[in-house]
Amino acid sequence: MTRTVYLNGDYMPETEATVSIFDRGFVMGDAVYEVTCVLDGRLTEFDGHMARLARSLKELEIPCDISRDEWLEIHRKLIELNGLQEGGIYLQISRGDVGDRDFHYPPAGTPPTVVLYTQSRPGLSTDPKADEGIKVISVPDLRWHRRDIKTVQLLYASMAKMAAEKEGKDDAWFVEDGFVTEGSSNNCYIVKNGKIITRQLSNDILHGITRSSVLKMAQEAQMEIEERPFTIAEAQAADEAFFTSASAFVMPIVEVDGVAVGSGKPGSVAKRLREIYISESLKSAI
Amino acid sequence: MTRTVYLNGDYMPETEATVSIFDRGFVMGDAVYEVTCVLDGRLTEFDGHMARLARSLKELEIPCDISRDEWLEIHRKLIELNGLQEGGIYLQISRGDVGDRDFHYPPAGTPPTVVLYTQSRPGLSTDPKADEGIKVISVPDLRWHRRDIKTVQLLYASMAKMAAEKEGKDDAWFVEDGFVTEGSSNNCYIVKNGKIITRQLSNDILHGITRSSVLKMAQEAQMEIEERPFTIAEAQAADEAFFTSASAFVMPIVEVDGVAVGSGKPGSVAKRLREIYISESLKSAI
Repeated sequence: MTRTVYLNGDYMPETEATVSIFDRGFVMGDAVYEVTCVLDGRLTEFDGHMARLARSLKELEIPCDISRDEWLEIHRKLIELNGLQEGGIYLQISRGDVGDRDFHYPPAGTPPTVVLYTQSRPGLSTDPKADEGIKVISVPDLRWHRRDIKTVQLLYASMAKMAAEKEGKDDAWFVEDGFVTEGSSNNCYIVKNGKIITRQLSNDILHGITRSSVLKMAQEAQMEIEERPFTIAEAQAADEAFFTSASAFVMPIVEVDGVAVGSGKPGSVAKRLREIYISESLKSAI
Repeated sequence: MTRTVYLNGDYMPETEATVSIFDRGFVMGDAVYEVTCVLDGRLTEFDGHMARLARSLKELEIPCDISRDEWLEIHRKLIELNGLQEGGIYLQISRGDVGDRDFHYPPAGTPPTVVLYTQSRPGLSTDPKADEGIKVISVPDLRWHRRDIKTVQLLYASMAKMAAEKEGKDDAWFVEDGFVTEGSSNNCYIVKNGKIITRQLSNDILHGITRSSVLKMAQEAQMEIEERPFTIAEAQAADEAFFTSASAFVMPIVEVDGVAVGSGKPGSVAKRLREIYISESLKSAI
């Protein structure tokens, strides 16, 4: 089925949606994005994603005057037009195109390029991977240092995922100055003696929307949380490990660099948080 | 005048040249590029740029089977079709598009996206800026750590240029761990007691084609060269400073972070190397 996508105000078949070869997203990685999860045909964490989008745009001084309600309308229309039940909506805004390549920002008034499309992922909330847990390798964190801004400069994240796959594993953790920063497209956690340990927010990591909600739910469930960096050795010696992301929710990790974490099976904290998170997300989806 | 550009085997008006919204260059910064300078309607340093392009593609495992002679034909045809006398030819190759966004590399056989276009810059070789010298500020180097691969992940370089402009200066130098890595789109040098000092090659900086030629010419002119990192303070206390790039050749720098370098005027080493470089480039252009 050909999807209907959104591009600069118009809904059109995906095969017809193109951008100029001069678009700053294409020539300079000058674009931000968000992915909002869809469960049961409704949007989860919508306001969180729109708030982070606004922050990314502001940090990069990319002008875009689409309001929260307009975004909601576009998202809902794409869900409807494509009959999306489970999956996500990808949204990208680049600084636009002025008909040539230039390091200088385009003049004021240049419209940004706005693209949205659906990605159907049936069975997302019942992914059997969550029952088995996933395996990760570690790689040096060679990414740029404003990881708090969700830009499309994702080449290294992509390279890291391919490196993991080459070793028969599922994902990669980035390590910088001896400590884990985050996963290739997710925030990571270990659990030791009942305490959840995860790196504190800074420009070193993405400020995960799922991270924020999961930590709140953990607190409400009386779980202890410590926000600080941890090492690969600590993760290997932990009772359990997991990651959070908008499209995988809470995902248990059972192996780090070839070493089983805890029992080598998904841990009870990760399992419980996954259940709570999916259940709450369904309840609050709009 | 509407330029004729090259896109995936075809020559077409620039206004019709578009790529899919799913192109990995657009959604993931997964693309490499080169800019070859054109003087007097001919290509300078062509083989150097093609060799670096091949290296970038190899490092990123982007398949592309266009030969050196085919590249030359495309470059020359674009010069001819657009009547280019002075300026450059921009070449970009992305990992292509498989009709959706995915962190995983596309399956084998997916064609890369290949784009080339001319940029006319009359007066490039007689730029009056070279007589005055330019002023730079320093900014922290927040870029990714494979700067030896010439990818389109240029957002931070663009941000740095804008930051310089905001302060009324011409360019920015990146500083990491206390030492200058390079300029926003060029390699940098200082001269002290007749000795040219420039950072050695590594993954920290781009392996400049102009850098390589200029150092060779300096050696042939019996100038002393030391390849090592230097600090901002050293640059401010130097006799002169300059940068090299494919489109600006050798450009004198007369101020670093508000402090005049040497006499505050372009130095004799930079001037001489600029003359030699432009003269030699014209001689060997093809």
